Order: sequence, then C-alpha cells, then structure tokens
Amino acid sequence: MKVTPWEVEGSIDYDKLIKEFGVQRLDNKLFERLKKHTKTLHPMLSRGIVFVHRDLDFALKEYESGKNLFLYTGRSPSGPIHIGHVFGWEFTRWLQEKLDLELWFQFPDEEKFLFKENLSYETAQKYLKENMLDIIALGFNPKKTHFIIDTKHASLMYSEAVKVAKKITFSMVKSSFGLNDSTNIGAIFYTSMQAVPAFLPSIINNKKLVCLIPHGVDQDPHFRLTRDILPKLGYYKPASIQWMMIPPLQGVQGKMQSHNSDAAIFLSDTPEQVKKKINKYAFSGGQATIEEHRKKGGNPEIDVSYQYLKAFFEPDNEKLKKIHDDYKSGKLLTGELKQILIDKINKFLKEHQERRRKAEKELDKFIFKM
Amino acid sequence: MKVTPWEVEGSIDYDKLIKEFGVQRLDNKLFERLKKHTKTLHPMLSRGIVFVHRDLDFALKEYESGKNLFLYTGRSPSGPIHIGHVFGWEFTRWLQEKLDLELWFQFPDEEKFLFKENLSYETAQKYLKENMLDIIALGFNPKKTHFIIDTKHASLMYSEAVKVAKKITFSMVKSSFGLNDSTNIGAIFYTSMQAVPAFLPSIINNKKLVCLIPHGVDQDPHFRLTRDILPKLGYYKPASIQWMMIPPLQGVQGKMQSHNSDAAIFLSDTPEQVKKKINKYAFSGGQATIEEHRKKGGNPEIDVSYQYLKAFFEPDNEKLKKIHDDYKSGKLLTGELKQILIDKINKFLKEHQERRRKAEKELDKFIFKM
Repeated sequence: MKVTPWEVEGSIDYDKLIKEFGVQRLDNKLFERLKKHTKTLHPMLSRGIVFVHRDLDFALKEYESGKNLFLYTGRSPSGPIHIGHVFGWEFTRWLQEKLDLELWFQFPDEEKFLFKENLSYETAQKYLKENMLDIIALGFNPKKTHFIIDTKHASLMYSEAVKVAKKITFSMVKSSFGLNDSTNIGAIFYTSMQAVPAFLPSIINNKKLVCLIPHGVDQDPHFRLTRDILPKLGYYKPASIQWMMIPPLQGVQGKMQSHNSDAAIFLSDTPEQVKKKINKYAFSGGQATIEEHRKKGGNPEIDVSYQYLKAFFEPDNEKLKKIHDDYKSGKLLTGELKQILIDKINKFLKEHQERRRKAEKELDKFIFKM
Repeated sequence: MKVTPWEVEGSIDYDKLIKEFGVQRLDNKLFERLKKHTKTLHPMLSRGIVFVHRDLDFALKEYESGKNLFLYTGRSPSGPIHIGHVFGWEFTRWLQEKLDLELWFQFPDEEKFLFKENLSYETAQKYLKENMLDIIALGFNPKKTHFIIDTKHASLMYSEAVKVAKKITFSMVKSSFGLNDSTNIGAIFYTSMQAVPAFLPSIINNKKLVCLIPHGVDQDPHFRLTRDILPKLGYYKPASIQWMMIPPLQGVQGKMQSHNSDAAIFLSDTPEQVKKKINKYAFSGGQATIEEHRKKGGNPEIDVSYQYLKAFFEPDNEKLKKIHDDYKSGKLLTGELKQILIDKINKFLKEHQERRRKAEKELDKFIFKM
C-alpha cells in the first residue's frame, strides 16, 4: 500500500497505517464527550468511517472552556467533485453546525498544478470555480465559512508561509512526502502554504485559537509536519479528526479519483450516468450466478455499493443492518442492492444540482475579504 | 573566491568570473550604440565598474524598435543602506532617466529572512521601510518607478512564481546556488519570486516586453536560471548589465556588507563617523612612512579611498586622473587622499539626508497599486 497526500494505492491496512502515522483511534469516551455538544453521533463516527484523530480531547477541552476553536479543511482543485469527496465534507458541515464553529476552507489552487506534470494552471483555475460552487451547494453556513484561495489570498498567506518554511528543511519534506532532487521547487515549498490556515485565524482574531482539521487520512503527513512547526511559531498544534479513503467503484482499494471518470460518480452526473456506472463498474461482493448467490450469499465488506450506503447514503442504522444481513444471506441480490444505491445517489444529486444552480450568487459571501 | 547571491568572499578574479558565469564584457561598439540614446557615457561605464552584460544588444534593439523595454532591479532588506549599494542604483537611475524607462524595483522582504538564520521577520520589515525611503531619496522618477514588495504584492506575484517554480527542480537550485538538503524550503523556493518582476510588466501591460536588469554580478546565478525558464513560459529572456562588487573599507576583497558596521559607510552616518571610519579603516595603498611614500609613491589599484572616488565620488575624469597620478608619484599622501574622499562623501550624505527627510510622504506614490 502507498498513502501520501498525492497518491493512494493498493489495499489499505488501516491498523498498520495508524501505527505508522501515529494517530489515535476514536473511542467511546471521546464519542460521549462529543455527544454532550452534538447530541447525536454522525453515522460516519458510529460506523468507523471517521476513525482516527490527533488531540481531539484537547480541542474539545478548549471548546468547552470558551469556544477557542475553529475548523479548517480544504480542497485542491484539479478536476470535478465526485461523491467520494462529499462524505468527509458532509461530516465537516455537520461538525460546524453542531458545534457552531467558524470553518476556514482552503483552496490551494497551486497544489495540483505543481504536483501534476500535465495539469495546466488554467485548468486548475477552471476547477477552482467549479469546485467552490459544489462546496457551497453542500450547505455550509455562509456566515461562518471562509474560503481562502492560495493565489488570490497570497498577500495574506505568503508572509506567514515563509515563517513556516524557514523551520522546514528539504530533508524533512523528503522523508515526509517522498520528494527527491527532481521535484520542482514549488512542490517542495507547498506544504508551508497548507500549514497557514491552521494559525491564520489566530492572527486575524488576535487570539490564540485551537484548530481542528477534519480531513482524509492521506493528508496526515502535511499536518504532522505542521504540528511540529506551529509551537515554534507560538501557536497550538492543530488537532485533527480523520476519515478513511472512499474506494473507487472498481473495488475497495485506493481512493476514488477524479481523473478516472469510470471509477467516480461526479456531482454533475445525470441519473442515467449514475445508473450505468453503478451497474457496470461498482465492484460486487455477490456470487457469479443468482443460484449461487441465493445459496452462499454475498460479502458486504468488499461490496462497493454496500460500502457507499454505509459511508453516507443510508444514514438509518436499522435499514443498513437489514441490507447487510439480507445481502449476506443471499436474500438481496447484487442488482437489487445496486438499485438501492442508485436511487439514493440520484435523489442526493437531484437536490444537490438544484442547490448548485443557486450557488453562483452566494460565492462572494464565502470568499474571505482581506 | 566565492561569489553567490548571498556571499562574496575573497579577492575576486573578474576574468575567471566572466568565464565561469558566461557573461559578455561591455565593448566600445555597445558603448557607441548606448550613447546614441544617452548622449553621454556614465563614468561607471567608461571606467569599467559596470563591466559585463547579457543580451544588452538585443535589449537596445527592442528599445530602438518601439520602446518595448523596461528596467528591473531590487533590494533585499536586512540592514541599513551603505554607500556600496548607492553606486549601482545611481547608475540605474541614470539609465532610467536617459532612456526614459519604467523601472520595477523589487523588495524581496522574505529573502534575507529565509537565508539568514538570525534575521527576524520583524527586523527585515523594519529595514524594508527604511531602505525604501533611502532609495526614494536617490532620485528615481516617482511616475516611472514601481516598488513591488514580495509579501505585500504576493497576490500578484505568487501565482506567477509557481509557474516559474514548476520548471525548476531541486537539482537545478543545488548546482546554481550551492543549496543542500539542510536548506529550508522557503530559501529553495525563493529564486522563483526573484524571477517574477522580469515578466510581470509584460502581463500588466498585456504586451511582450524585454526586461533589462542592472545588477551586481553576484546576482547573476538567479538571472541565469530565470533566462533558462522565461522562454518556456512565453516571455523573452531578460537582458542584464552588471557591475563589480564594491569593496569594504578594509580592502579590495569581497563586497561591502551592512552587517559589519566598521566596514561600511551608512547613508545615515554623520560627518564625524565618516571621517573616523575612512581615516581608521579605509585600506591604504600608501607606504608605511611619509618619507617612503614620497620616494616610492602609492598604489591606487588597491587603495580603497581611490577606488571609491573612481567608482562614484569623483565623476570628473581629469580630476580623477590627477589624483591617480599624484598618488602614484608620491605627491599626494594617504591622509590627503582620504580627506578628498571624506569631503565628497559628506557632501553627498548631507544632500541625501535632506532628501530622505522628505521621502516619507513620497512613499505611497512609489508602491505599486494592485
């Protein structure tokens, strides 16, 4: 397996990853503490999709003692948004709503341009705009959500990024990210820019705040480095709460990626496209023939359709359990399971696409005013 | 000898440097072509202080065919301005005036912070302001001179710098600047920011312009790299016209540096400080005793006072020749030579300090409006 901020390959052994990265599993004690404020537990928490953290206990302590807490997450534009992205952002939106927190949403519009040989600057800029509209349509609070765009807000960010950069040597990024002498110098510098939103709100509010970063586990190497540096600049280490990688349609390996359009369901897909992609590509845990399936049953653990329902599309625990058990027993066929998912996704996309049409005129409210 | 943008050490063999760097000596043909526009020849040209170039002929051709030319120079703030800086800027001011050109004056206020372990960001910011006032007082045209400050103008510059950075690998900056794995990632990225003013005016004016960079020869490694990259981004290679390093008071080695206050005369020095520094520290080409000096004569080539007169403070060729010959013959004593320089410097500083007091209210005119 390979897990870096730019590549996720192979079947991920999460127990091994937890040890390697040095993150903590979320446990019932933390769930109870969180529930004091959120009342309910998001299904992504109870089902172990959001599964590890760093210093969440410290972040909650600061929250409890005076709301000295803000959220920070991000999106590096390089292609269209797919449903794999939505899971984590829906969780982030839920956290923002339940804890009533400011959310800083970074758009590092130079990142993928620097890391992908063939991505042009213009293409990244096109997707910057497209992605912002999709994210607005997910329902973040316009009064408490601040978009910061690396190139547009560079007059605010670059001076802070160089303070971070002075504390990071090339050796450190080599070992953290697997860079080498052939890496371009923009990519080498980049992690400094990703560190900035973890303390920029402390500068803007002139108050030492704690940052909680909801993010996919593949981004952990950035923030591990950020956690080493920030105390040297007089800020708290950022805390984090992290989710698993959402598998591509073809199977529970790697993560869903925008550049492989067969493996991803985009937020702009039509009902027909969704139906076709799920039926054609979604990896099945079922048996080769109906007879065999009825007899032996399917395996929900490797079935992508079931995994999507579990991660996001079937929030009702009882309904999910019934689907699980029926599929495992052979009562529910693969085609029927896929149809459940297709209906759920198409309902979600219909509503999303309506909200997105109205998002354009909200854009200005979301972009942070320097 | 060692000549990099951050360190100049030892006695500089300029013939060797010309070969190593691959720059061209200025010759009479270029002087004649330049004189068609400037009418006179600046003493720094005729005396060989401004001594090498890259593509100056191409820059003049573009100038002649439609003024598609602008100037770019810079100052990285880390300490007070000393007279060693003034020589090159006076030449730059002269070029701007005679050719009636726009001048982009970059203040990379992050550079020295990134390259000097002990320089704080706040100190660099303090000198940024101080240095801008001194540069204004040198008499640049406020209507045609644009200050761009890396951190303040980052929203304009960073997006362009990443396009440069994508074309430069760590290997390239390692060999160009002698960086290594212990170098911080901000310093590694920095050369991309220094490249930006060489093409930013082409973007702002929406017209492909040629950039001519008057600069000290120690900065050549930056612009050699810039010249390799810019054509790949659709711009012309920047041309340059370069001057020698101004020696410190203690002798004709290295360059005058702000952090050694005994070795430099600052623009804020009083007449008494100037007198004391020259008399006490200026390396003399004279003999040990008056008797011996009268008999053997002095050596103007290694005498720092004579070199300062030659570089800047005695523009009159005939007067300079008389000083040279009298010193060489032993007629002019070291104390007398030093007194000539002291008077010249103090006259210059008196006028400069008066202009500088009025510079503060000019500042806003010089800073480029984004």
